[in-house]
Amino acid sequence: MKQFLDEDFLLESKSAEELYHMHARQLPIIDFHCHLSPKDIAENRQFENITEAWLEGDHYKWRAMRANGINEEYCTGNAEPFEKFKKWAGTVPFTMTNPLYHWTHLELKRYFNISGQLLTTETCGEIFKETSRLLKTEEFRVLGLLEKMKVEVICTTDDPSDDLGYHKAHSESGNNLVLLPAFRPDNAYAVNDPKTYNLYLEKLGDVAGKAINNYTDLVGVLEERVEYFHAFGCRLSDHGLDFIPKINYELSDLSRIFNKVRNGNQLQKDEIAQFKLGLLVRLGKLYHQYGWTQQYHLGALRNNNSRMLRILGQDTGFDSIGDFPQAEGLSHLLNLLDTTDHLSKTILYNLNPADNELFATMAGNFGDGTIAGKVQYGSAWWFLDQKSGMKRQLETLGNMGLLSRFVGMLTDSRSFLSFPRHEYFRRILCNLLGSQIEKGLLPNDKKWIGQMVKAISYQNAASYFNLPKENTINV
Amino acid sequence: MKQFLDEDFLLESKSAEELYHMHARQLPIIDFHCHLSPKDIAENRQFENITEAWLEGDHYKWRAMRANGINEEYCTGNAEPFEKFKKWAGTVPFTMTNPLYHWTHLELKRYFNISGQLLTTETCGEIFKETSRLLKTEEFRVLGLLEKMKVEVICTTDDPSDDLGYHKAHSESGNNLVLLPAFRPDNAYAVNDPKTYNLYLEKLGDVAGKAINNYTDLVGVLEERVEYFHAFGCRLSDHGLDFIPKINYELSDLSRIFNKVRNGNQLQKDEIAQFKLGLLVRLGKLYHQYGWTQQYHLGALRNNNSRMLRILGQDTGFDSIGDFPQAEGLSHLLNLLDTTDHLSKTILYNLNPADNELFATMAGNFGDGTIAGKVQYGSAWWFLDQKSGMKRQLETLGNMGLLSRFVGMLTDSRSFLSFPRHEYFRRILCNLLGSQIEKGLLPNDKKWIGQMVKAISYQNAASYFNLPKENTINV
Amino acid sequence: MKQFLDEDFLLESKSAEELYHMHARQLPIIDFHCHLSPKDIAENRQFENITEAWLEGDHYKWRAMRANGINEEYCTGNAEPFEKFKKWAGTVPFTMTNPLYHWTHLELKRYFNISGQLLTTETCGEIFKETSRLLKTEEFRVLGLLEKMKVEVICTTDDPSDDLGYHKAHSESGNNLVLLPAFRPDNAYAVNDPKTYNLYLEKLGDVAGKAINNYTDLVGVLEERVEYFHAFGCRLSDHGLDFIPKINYELSDLSRIFNKVRNGNQLQKDEIAQFKLGLLVRLGKLYHQYGWTQQYHLGALRNNNSRMLRILGQDTGFDSIGDFPQAEGLSHLLNLLDTTDHLSKTILYNLNPADNELFATMAGNFGDGTIAGKVQYGSAWWFLDQKSGMKRQLETLGNMGLLSRFVGMLTDSRSFLSFPRHEYFRRILCNLLGSQIEKGLLPNDKKWIGQMVKAISYQNAASYFNLPKENTINV
Repeated sequence: MKQFLDEDFLLESKSAEELYHMHARQLPIIDFHCHLSPKDIAENRQFENITEAWLEGDHYKWRAMRANGINEEYCTGNAEPFEKFKKWAGTVPFTMTNPLYHWTHLELKRYFNISGQLLTTETCGEIFKETSRLLKTEEFRVLGLLEKMKVEVICTTDDPSDDLGYHKAHSESGNNLVLLPAFRPDNAYAVNDPKTYNLYLEKLGDVAGKAINNYTDLVGVLEERVEYFHAFGCRLSDHGLDFIPKINYELSDLSRIFNKVRNGNQLQKDEIAQFKLGLLVRLGKLYHQYGWTQQYHLGALRNNNSRMLRILGQDTGFDSIGDFPQAEGLSHLLNLLDTTDHLSKTILYNLNPADNELFATMAGNFGDGTIAGKVQYGSAWWFLDQKSGMKRQLETLGNMGLLSRFVGMLTDSRSFLSFPRHEYFRRILCNLLGSQIEKGLLPNDKKWIGQMVKAISYQNAASYFNLPKENTINV
Repeated sequence: MKQFLDEDFLLESKSAEELYHMHARQLPIIDFHCHLSPKDIAENRQFENITEAWLEGDHYKWRAMRANGINEEYCTGNAEPFEKFKKWAGTVPFTMTNPLYHWTHLELKRYFNISGQLLTTETCGEIFKETSRLLKTEEFRVLGLLEKMKVEVICTTDDPSDDLGYHKAHSESGNNLVLLPAFRPDNAYAVNDPKTYNLYLEKLGDVAGKAINNYTDLVGVLEERVEYFHAFGCRLSDHGLDFIPKINYELSDLSRIFNKVRNGNQLQKDEIAQFKLGLLVRLGKLYHQYGWTQQYHLGALRNNNSRMLRILGQDTGFDSIGDFPQAEGLSHLLNLLDTTDHLSKTILYNLNPADNELFATMAGNFGDGTIAGKVQYGSAWWFLDQKSGMKRQLETLGNMGLLSRFVGMLTDSRSFLSFPRHEYFRRILCNLLGSQIEKGLLPNDKKWIGQMVKAISYQNAASYFNLPKENTINV
Repeated sequence: MKQFLDEDFLLESKSAEELYHMHARQLPIIDFHCHLSPKDIAENRQFENITEAWLEGDHYKWRAMRANGINEEYCTGNAEPFEKFKKWAGTVPFTMTNPLYHWTHLELKRYFNISGQLLTTETCGEIFKETSRLLKTEEFRVLGLLEKMKVEVICTTDDPSDDLGYHKAHSESGNNLVLLPAFRPDNAYAVNDPKTYNLYLEKLGDVAGKAINNYTDLVGVLEERVEYFHAFGCRLSDHGLDFIPKINYELSDLSRIFNKVRNGNQLQKDEIAQFKLGLLVRLGKLYHQYGWTQQYHLGALRNNNSRMLRILGQDTGFDSIGDFPQAEGLSHLLNLLDTTDHLSKTILYNLNPADNELFATMAGNFGDGTIAGKVQYGSAWWFLDQKSGMKRQLETLGNMGLLSRFVGMLTDSRSFLSFPRHEYFRRILCNLLGSQIEKGLLPNDKKWIGQMVKAISYQNAASYFNLPKENTINV
């Protein structure tokens, strides 16, 4: 019987162990998509205690606590830090078989060197004390936490209206961590709510120093913002979408629709779809011009619980997996971009695992021989970001495309303590390949397959995204 | 090599064996959802032979026989009992890898102690003789069969128009088995066929002693029936739906639509959807008021074969798995109930396994900290009620929610011989947890995990449903 | 550690090895669905080199090369044969974990006896030379390649307008290979493009010697073609469809719609759907009359890349997996045929694995006791035709129906070198059954299970399709 979370955690064969320890373990991390706070990085934040670091913004943990019958007071409410932590600690044993159980103990071990005891109501006092003590040291500030995990690059997720001031501040700090923005313009086509949209246009216009009165203005401002982000080292965009509509539109439709919503009118469903698709195409061409990689995150059904939405706002743990039709719309968008040769490097992420094979094969429709792995089937995302979800993503990609060319893992996280997720991914990858070697499904060529592990864990991302090597801002 | 169906059947590690034999094996059964006949229980039915007990109403077996080229004469037709049994016995070896192969031999072993021989055309004569001999003894009457399996509680599935006379009769019998009704009002919103619907309203009005002339009458009668069922110890409702429509409606719509169909008029598609959703919301609030648990069974495509529907009627083995959109409608209904804090304890069952993750994450949207596991992702159902289906349900729940809080298994069965299905489930559960212990994915904490096994196998259901402990009717 | 691709490749237990080597290995092949060229068979084509045999028409390989960043010049372009092969060889190591890696080396081993070295840029020169040498020998002509793999029967895929001249030529050759046509009338209801459709009708009318001026003419000509194909030993039809529409229609609708498109008018979406469904029903009745088996291939999203479609045409590697609703339309068609007892033997193939269970249970709705396995859930197709896809298809069929009655594998291939795919399938089948024996999930009855392996690998197909035993044309 294997010990829980030992050195060979998740590695079920000698080949898997060899691949991980010799080829993956020591590699640095390029976290090309996450939701970390640039402010916390720029200010090199120090956490008071583990509750701040763990429970302040982690809707995964809140969901588990709610499911365990814990009152909101202890999730997002005003309970004392230790009381909150205790409720979380009491929930942890009930998360057995959930990835939270692994992550919790892996994070305690990797950051705080706590491995002798499991987190429970009984041990939580001691663990709270020890982690708080450490978090108050210089080494456990945000930049120290990242360094401990060998994080080389972080790409945050930023609205076009962001002035990237924190990125600037960090770039001037002399710290080695490369901190880059990523361009997430979801608000620019969130035309379903005219009031909110118009407020957003004011904000966006302000940062660009230019009023946005028509569609041409909007595109112009977005172009400027892309140029601005590019100067800060941005090389990725990201889009969070339920699905991509398959609909026809003319350029004149986009102008007309924009005017309608700009004047505060509610749009028809088809108009919303046309505008969204039209702007995605326009943005896609822009990304292509700058050599960026565009990311599409598809399939979430958000804000299911309107009572809690009213109270807590978005991204608080009330989202789930949707079953929108995905194939035709996604094909339509990629084809619109490809047909005039404006399709940028692209990563497709799906949230509903029923769509795994659909997405993996869709990526294969737009390889054009210009760059290996041009259209990527992205790593297991959100609810799928666990052992079986990662395994299925890797197997599907392997069966339907070229696993060797995969750009690999990212945290997608809001927590500075979540970087062992890269280790988790690498172990699962090595286990999959090691197992195939042992079973005679792959040749026992550790040199080649070791290189494959390195590529997927680090090198593919390094070469594919063409990211700046250091913090330099060329404005 | 392991022997077929031995003591450690389905248990692939020492830890799995230990968990099952020490923590799960001896537990009694709460079968909180099934289709057993209250009449057979009240009358403590005695079967003439195994054909009656096994083939009289089991559409799983009929389907397998039809697929094996057996004429309907031997499935639902008039062939002699032994001739039918012989055809079934001849089909059994062809069911290898199907759950029927396991269930058949597990049932022969657990009820009749037949384990030396497999069921085939060759052995069927002897097995028919032996099982018939036993079935004619007192011990093998229906109540004896249930006692042999340690069944403590049975919740049947009953129409609101049912007078629950058999439940009453059983409650007066002095037998220890707690027999409770469950409220299944599907007919109350089956407005697609005005003629059948109006006949149903007459029947429902009769049992309630009140004419149902408008929507208010209908709701009033349903309220009375819920009160009546509650007095009989009912604590669960159940709904069989293809999908839940996402549609808006006003209370006035429901009245208008009801009047239209009450006058014998065919409804529009949208009216049917509005009425169904509206009544589901009304009923949901009622369940909440009584502290019941509501169950939604979603995703079946029923009555595919209209030729056989004409001949044999419903539930005869011609249903299959649908691919209806599920996420938005389900979210809509749950949210409508939650938004005014009228969401009852709820169990969501899906038939299409492509929706597993969708359902498991949907459940997580409505945990409100009042009770652990308030919205449950229900056990593998119907076609999914087999080894791989159960395993996937357990893994999905584990990955997306809290397996520890799961209320577990039910038979959903029409057969008194199907209770080894609980054993089957428990073995699969123990194997999953045992395997994770052995692999170091869970700590080797048999005390905690043993308790987790007990909870999922029995105690969670006992505490979650808050069922009466004995047969008492408070009318 | 097992050697890559050794004698017990894919066989993970003693029982699996025994089943494969004693019961499956030596069986001949009935390849009842493929896209091989009748011309190449009739002319007993000789390939110049492995590039011709492997890369001329294999869009699986082209896709992998494009994903690996290889320019189109080397896929479908004008590069020299060895240069193309070298690019493919350089791609092969990057296909690790993709089925192409297995197939490549299995084909080199089984046809060319090359097993000492793996295909890479380094070894490709020697391998090109050796395979070219062999391909130029008499034994490596097309008929020799098929004989080497023990192929008894091949069913090609042919348009109704085909005169089957190559089938005739082969039948007169005296060669033992039974070469049969299969009827694929997709063009007969491809009414979405009036111009192409009318050109097709001219061609079809010409081969039948009869002008097609109205719907009755069309049906009449198709009847004649079915009779003609039947005389050539055709016993299967095949349909490639995205999905089957659920829509009502009258016979008069079909006439009207036909006249509209025959006059060059663009049809409405609903008209296209009605016409397609109506003709599928008419054809289904015809197949029933002739005792044929009809095949439905459902779920592909074709021609996603319109740039490459313009350049290279269809079937060049730009198709992927769709997510069309499948259940209701499929049920509708099968029921329309069954309700008047005109449902022929039928095989249902799905491309989206999310639909596996839907399809497997749909097949179970139309077993009528006339023939074992009347409606089949077909083998893993196209993107699913790999280890995990096959395993899932077999497990799903086993869980939802009768694996024992499965008619088994086909290549669906355009390559004469792809027949080890049957070996691949048989190994996976034996491994699945062997594993269940070892785990005590099946009794250790190698006689019965060995027979089951034989049936699925060969005998079920032999008896189910009722194919002619030799090449005789009865025109």
